[in-house]
Amino acid sequence: MKAAILSIGEELTSGQCVDTNSAWLSQSLIALGLTVTRHLTVADDLEAIEAAFRESMVGTDLVIATGGLGPTPDDLTREALAKALGVTLEHSEVAEAQIRAFFERWGKRFRDSNLGQARMPLGCTVLENARGTAPGIYFDGPACRVFVLPGVPSEMKPMFERHVAPGLSGTGSVTISAAVRCFGLSEADLGDRLADMMVRTRNPLIGVTASGAILTVRAKATGCSGIEARRLIDADLDEIRTRIAERVFGSGADGLEDAVAKLLLESGQTLATAESCTGGLLAKRLTDVPGSSAFFLSGAISYANQAKVDLLGVPAGLIESEGAVSEAVARSMGVGCRSSARSDYALAITGIAGPDGGLSPEKPVGLVFIALATESGCDVRRCLFGDHLSRCEIRGRAVNVALDMLRLRLLRPAC
Amino acid sequence: MKAAILSIGEELTSGQCVDTNSAWLSQSLIALGLTVTRHLTVADDLEAIEAAFRESMVGTDLVIATGGLGPTPDDLTREALAKALGVTLEHSEVAEAQIRAFFERWGKRFRDSNLGQARMPLGCTVLENARGTAPGIYFDGPACRVFVLPGVPSEMKPMFERHVAPGLSGTGSVTISAAVRCFGLSEADLGDRLADMMVRTRNPLIGVTASGAILTVRAKATGCSGIEARRLIDADLDEIRTRIAERVFGSGADGLEDAVAKLLLESGQTLATAESCTGGLLAKRLTDVPGSSAFFLSGAISYANQAKVDLLGVPAGLIESEGAVSEAVARSMGVGCRSSARSDYALAITGIAGPDGGLSPEKPVGLVFIALATESGCDVRRCLFGDHLSRCEIRGRAVNVALDMLRLRLLRPAC
Repeated sequence: MKAAILSIGEELTSGQCVDTNSAWLSQSLIALGLTVTRHLTVADDLEAIEAAFRESMVGTDLVIATGGLGPTPDDLTREALAKALGVTLEHSEVAEAQIRAFFERWGKRFRDSNLGQARMPLGCTVLENARGTAPGIYFDGPACRVFVLPGVPSEMKPMFERHVAPGLSGTGSVTISAAVRCFGLSEADLGDRLADMMVRTRNPLIGVTASGAILTVRAKATGCSGIEARRLIDADLDEIRTRIAERVFGSGADGLEDAVAKLLLESGQTLATAESCTGGLLAKRLTDVPGSSAFFLSGAISYANQAKVDLLGVPAGLIESEGAVSEAVARSMGVGCRSSARSDYALAITGIAGPDGGLSPEKPVGLVFIALATESGCDVRRCLFGDHLSRCEIRGRAVNVALDMLRLRLLRPAC
Repeated sequence: MKAAILSIGEELTSGQCVDTNSAWLSQSLIALGLTVTRHLTVADDLEAIEAAFRESMVGTDLVIATGGLGPTPDDLTREALAKALGVTLEHSEVAEAQIRAFFERWGKRFRDSNLGQARMPLGCTVLENARGTAPGIYFDGPACRVFVLPGVPSEMKPMFERHVAPGLSGTGSVTISAAVRCFGLSEADLGDRLADMMVRTRNPLIGVTASGAILTVRAKATGCSGIEARRLIDADLDEIRTRIAERVFGSGADGLEDAVAKLLLESGQTLATAESCTGGLLAKRLTDVPGSSAFFLSGAISYANQAKVDLLGVPAGLIESEGAVSEAVARSMGVGCRSSARSDYALAITGIAGPDGGLSPEKPVGLVFIALATESGCDVRRCLFGDHLSRCEIRGRAVNVALDMLRLRLLRPAC
């Protein structure tokens, strides 16, 4: 069963927003065994949306559209779908009742402008929105089914799960995707290790992408049944894990923080962090993980030099003699952080994320020292992230290296 | 001049990656005066890519494609473009020399698998990649120009700026986009205030989108010249700012942290943060701003109760009697943070981000207390973010409210 995804919004074609809905919908549809053939995005233009609906419905079994269901005059999806289907747009009592109920539940005032959201193409079904004011739309066509969902992700996702997913299943061959994530080797090196598995006619089909020095190896398997597809993909994932060994840190969309969290939870050990140039990103990534309070004790963001002294006990004289960005200060931050937090491990980061602040040819933008303090001492790693990286990328890579140092330590406690 | 954007990658159609390149390219093309009509995304499938190139070239002056130029066998864009153009794929000495030079510069080993990246469709021009191994491709067609850039954003962006942007300019009517960002009012309320400006036949065209309780009002103006379009859009932005007043916090893609940073830099004042449930996100957002070291002194992430006592001087008895998630503890965190950091302001956040950890009907998931400590005292705001929001959304909204509290205080110092 083939599906096409259509995203509607001037904010998308103008690039003022990044389209995250299409990725989420693709994942959800693939998990249900469908194949997603394309994503198309058009602006809030009546003719463009109408044409996009018509085009997306050709050669596909299912169209999922998002966006343009709001209460403001730039929300034209209802009208464009009616035109594409050749029907009129009518007021729906069902939709109005749902919108009024939503306002009542949250104690908010219903406005006449919200009435426009109750207009529906004739012959379509209203889909209730539990999280917002925009009802969704379902058209059960003879060749192609069309669902229109709100563009706001927190409204779109539950509507998909409640009203779309249950009707999609059992469709001939099944395609399953899975991924493993690796850190610490180059894309070409990885490609060489997996070359024989990456032949384009092979099933599963294997691909590699890179982002922030994290490599993702994706496998897509097709089988007559979910069990067969799963068997094919599991065999490949096992083989990939064997070839890449401990460079593999997770699967799916796992981050290095998920791998670290899992290992800390398993060992019952605790962590504290001390950050300068990464400004809280390391702690933020770790506490993105639900349940992180079981291992994450505290973080200190010692942005100013005085804060390094006050929060972490770094000697002021050391900062003066070695500089705030130095191996010695990273070590002192790590040891001080572990000691004051009374944690099993501490990670400390000090560096120059740029764009300004390069101190000298010896201390350029991109120089970062990362310390891992443990009961047996403190390892410090010096990283020089190239000047082709942005502030944001340097911060992200520094956090990845820090997390990977701890991950490898937790995997090899004897070292 | 019309442009279409084509993104290539199984990781995109499968939803395993979000496509950020298309948004960035749209912004860049619109800034140069072009109109972006659509984004299309297809998988790493030779026939699908070839068809997508053909389709994208119809009725447009320019196609910018990204992705599929890597060294692994799933990188098929070179071959698909050659097929779409009806030419052969040949080895390029120029491309090979560029790839070898890149490896030498970064002291990395050239692999035979990288030779595949030096193959080019006949008649196309090689575009040098200063940041990676994948050269870009330029085809100067009679009706439509095609640029193919690497999918990795840190390689794609500089290549666009160096090799694509300089050739695009001076194309009849000019379209300009701009946006203002607001916080603290509902989408329907905003729509009512701007209703007369949002008529779809009007120039500039005004639209509204919502994300994490931040509303973005976008204006798109078309004129015979850049000056005329700019005049139209500036008049509208002034009118919008008048109607929404201090609820407007910025323009373009500004975050609340940018507004706070600007006000703190102007006033020469300093800030420290104390975070529990947001786990560093507030500090991370503030230090995302380049130059934030001028106002951001330090942050304490007091995830464990003991850390609230040790880092912020919150009395252990207070945590016991009131609970860690309480107005009193938020106040104590704020006052303690400001005092220990010796900053002008301190923001403190304590709450329950979920998905677990709801303590009682009185203290459910989504309950967050936010304190702003100043020289004249400490304001605490109680927020109840609905259970329809995820952990990530609750954390993001809490940070937005905290930043907005400080922003309004900095705008109205007398209050």
